[in-house]
Amino acid sequence: MLKAFLDFINLQKLFEPQDKILLAVSGGVDSVALTVLFKEAGFNFAIAHCNFQLRGEESDTDEAFVKALAESVGAQFFVRCFDTKNYAAVANISTQMAARELRYDWFSELIARHSFTAIATAHHLDDNIETVLFNLAKGTGIAGLRGMLPKNNGIIRPLLFASKSQIVDFAHAEGLQWREDSSNDSVKYTRNLIRHKIVPVLKEINPSLDDTFRQTLEKMKETEAVLRYRVAEIEGKYISKKGSDIFIAIEGVVDREAVLLEELIKPYGFNYSQAQELYSMLRHRSSGKILESDRYKLNVDREILIVSPMGQVITEQLLAHDASKVSNEVVQLVIEVATDKRILTGKNEASLDYDRLRFPLKLRKWRQGDTFRPLGMKGKKKISDFMIDEKIPLNLKERVCVLESDGEVAWIVGYRIDDRFKVRPDSKRIYNIVMHRND
Amino acid sequence: MLKAFLDFINLQKLFEPQDKILLAVSGGVDSVALTVLFKEAGFNFAIAHCNFQLRGEESDTDEAFVKALAESVGAQFFVRCFDTKNYAAVANISTQMAARELRYDWFSELIARHSFTAIATAHHLDDNIETVLFNLAKGTGIAGLRGMLPKNNGIIRPLLFASKSQIVDFAHAEGLQWREDSSNDSVKYTRNLIRHKIVPVLKEINPSLDDTFRQTLEKMKETEAVLRYRVAEIEGKYISKKGSDIFIAIEGVVDREAVLLEELIKPYGFNYSQAQELYSMLRHRSSGKILESDRYKLNVDREILIVSPMGQVITEQLLAHDASKVSNEVVQLVIEVATDKRILTGKNEASLDYDRLRFPLKLRKWRQGDTFRPLGMKGKKKISDFMIDEKIPLNLKERVCVLESDGEVAWIVGYRIDDRFKVRPDSKRIYNIVMHRND
Repeated sequence: MLKAFLDFINLQKLFEPQDKILLAVSGGVDSVALTVLFKEAGFNFAIAHCNFQLRGEESDTDEAFVKALAESVGAQFFVRCFDTKNYAAVANISTQMAARELRYDWFSELIARHSFTAIATAHHLDDNIETVLFNLAKGTGIAGLRGMLPKNNGIIRPLLFASKSQIVDFAHAEGLQWREDSSNDSVKYTRNLIRHKIVPVLKEINPSLDDTFRQTLEKMKETEAVLRYRVAEIEGKYISKKGSDIFIAIEGVVDREAVLLEELIKPYGFNYSQAQELYSMLRHRSSGKILESDRYKLNVDREILIVSPMGQVITEQLLAHDASKVSNEVVQLVIEVATDKRILTGKNEASLDYDRLRFPLKLRKWRQGDTFRPLGMKGKKKISDFMIDEKIPLNLKERVCVLESDGEVAWIVGYRIDDRFKVRPDSKRIYNIVMHRND
Repeated sequence: MLKAFLDFINLQKLFEPQDKILLAVSGGVDSVALTVLFKEAGFNFAIAHCNFQLRGEESDTDEAFVKALAESVGAQFFVRCFDTKNYAAVANISTQMAARELRYDWFSELIARHSFTAIATAHHLDDNIETVLFNLAKGTGIAGLRGMLPKNNGIIRPLLFASKSQIVDFAHAEGLQWREDSSNDSVKYTRNLIRHKIVPVLKEINPSLDDTFRQTLEKMKETEAVLRYRVAEIEGKYISKKGSDIFIAIEGVVDREAVLLEELIKPYGFNYSQAQELYSMLRHRSSGKILESDRYKLNVDREILIVSPMGQVITEQLLAHDASKVSNEVVQLVIEVATDKRILTGKNEASLDYDRLRFPLKLRKWRQGDTFRPLGMKGKKKISDFMIDEKIPLNLKERVCVLESDGEVAWIVGYRIDDRFKVRPDSKRIYNIVMHRND
């Protein structure tokens, strides 16, 4: 077992001999075996135990057991008690989720404070087979089928090569003691279904299921890497970012597999079904359509997909009559009051009649229902209609600001001033504004 | 059902409305439903039924049933009776395998004779879920996890979108009749384990398992396509062929995933474990090593992998004294007997003393144990040692021929003549040979 353990650490490059590893030890047979293997290998390690206080006295006995184990192997021992039930209630999440959050928050803290290289958990092959079957039942992509990785996000799993029975055999051979976990939450219920009802049937079909799965998991891991390579290739070639917007050239994704597009838009909260929907839009050339995730929206433009944060927050800013600068989340305005009649005419500039403005002015996001009188026009126009006529793309609409004077829109910042505030022959002072975008 | 059926055919581009499709109909509910849907859609189709004569009278009743079905829908009916048991016994294969071979041979024949566009089978979603679980149990790559394809190798599966229960509901709603299959072979036994023991548990974990699997299968299909794209890319850039040899530039595969290499060498009978082994060799720079499949060997050279057919067959050829040409699977020799003493010295040429040769000469493959006296040397040398000294690559060794005169090697064709047969000052007639390679 020790040799297989060391080989696995080497082959998977989990850590270097001099690294300091934090073992997450519950006191169950897996984590006790992990501890003993670390000790036997002579590695540099400490032990962390979470007491979630979910099983009363039993939880405390677990803690005492792990403490004694740490002493017996001469490892530094960290323990923390959590009021898991309360945390779950306050955060309105499941107890399992709460335990998970509490555990990883604390581990991150320990890593930062004591500079561990990684956290080691005692997940083994059976766990991984169950994970894959669970993912398969619940629906998954290739990442779900390769199961847990030996090394991922600062967590290493040095027992992932070993089956549960190999670990138990090792524990017996070494005369180890451990604690049995009596908890039975819903995750555990599902796990038990898989462990006791599905896996035995799979083993009837294939008695060498463990070896078979080791290989299948490896293949899936590699296949995922090939997928990611391809995604990175497309990303490098067809994706650009500007500020908080992401631009995906349609030629880079059209006629390709939806799983590729899924990977590209997943970071923004979109899923596979939306990637498929998007493909269907692209096939039917229905530009102008929009998809929404919980945080982003994706706009299908003629030749690009534009992903932009939803509901750009723009806080209102007031401008006193003598303010020379103001800025919000998206723009910065630089102001100068002049007496010569030189009018600024650039797209990002405006010249208004100072004496018609009522201070303080207000810089704010445009709102549905806003109207103004576009320069050169007699009638009023809805800003929403103006933006359609101007073909302002959806992602930019989110960031259109107006400069308001006593409830009237004086300037759609960066687009058009209001006719009522324009500079006239008889204007005395000119309110010159230059806009800079904050992205 | 009809709409979903037509949508699926469209979306998956299974065939065009005017195409002529051959339906494989056993008489079970799935294939009867398939038949009725083809009829309702107004497609152009015929029906083929295999009578494997494995269930006595029942088999004949099935046949009569399908014949009546074909008549009722006005479709041309093809039937063939097979002596499956006997075929299996003679070919020394399982009954299932025999049935499979017989079926597809006959279908191919029908397709060729009546120019059908494709064969349609009645495989459905449940079959596909079972296939994936079966592959997962037995060990698989991504191709096993995407299950059967809607369209593959001339077979289309227009019901692959539908669950078994949807098909049965449709059959009931249409008042259809069908035959129940009472057979129970070993494949069916394993299928039943999956169907009755695993799938119900998965459905307990996820009641929408069918929809979930539809999506997962689609994702896997696409992921496989991404893998194949990458394989094709590497193939185009790093693989070349010459004759029956395949050359893979090591730089094209080293530090990449073993699944890629597996796909590259799979056509030659190598598997994933061998791809992994190969990677380990490449990492340790152990060139000169060799891998064997049942038909090919793979030689690790310094910068390339050479895949070549094993045991190149080279039939012996005899040369009469006046023969001017001879050829075998790998070389062709063109002969001229001359009296002037101009000696051919090119690599692919030889000049021998005609009067020392004993006809008929024999052109044959070299053999272990062959010896000769290399030109200019006094002693004998094993041809195997000579080839090592000459650094003849493994793939070419398979194709080295010798020209033999009365049991003595006179020429290692294309490499070196034997000293005993060289042209001397007193030689009268010169036996000039020019070799051309047949690849």
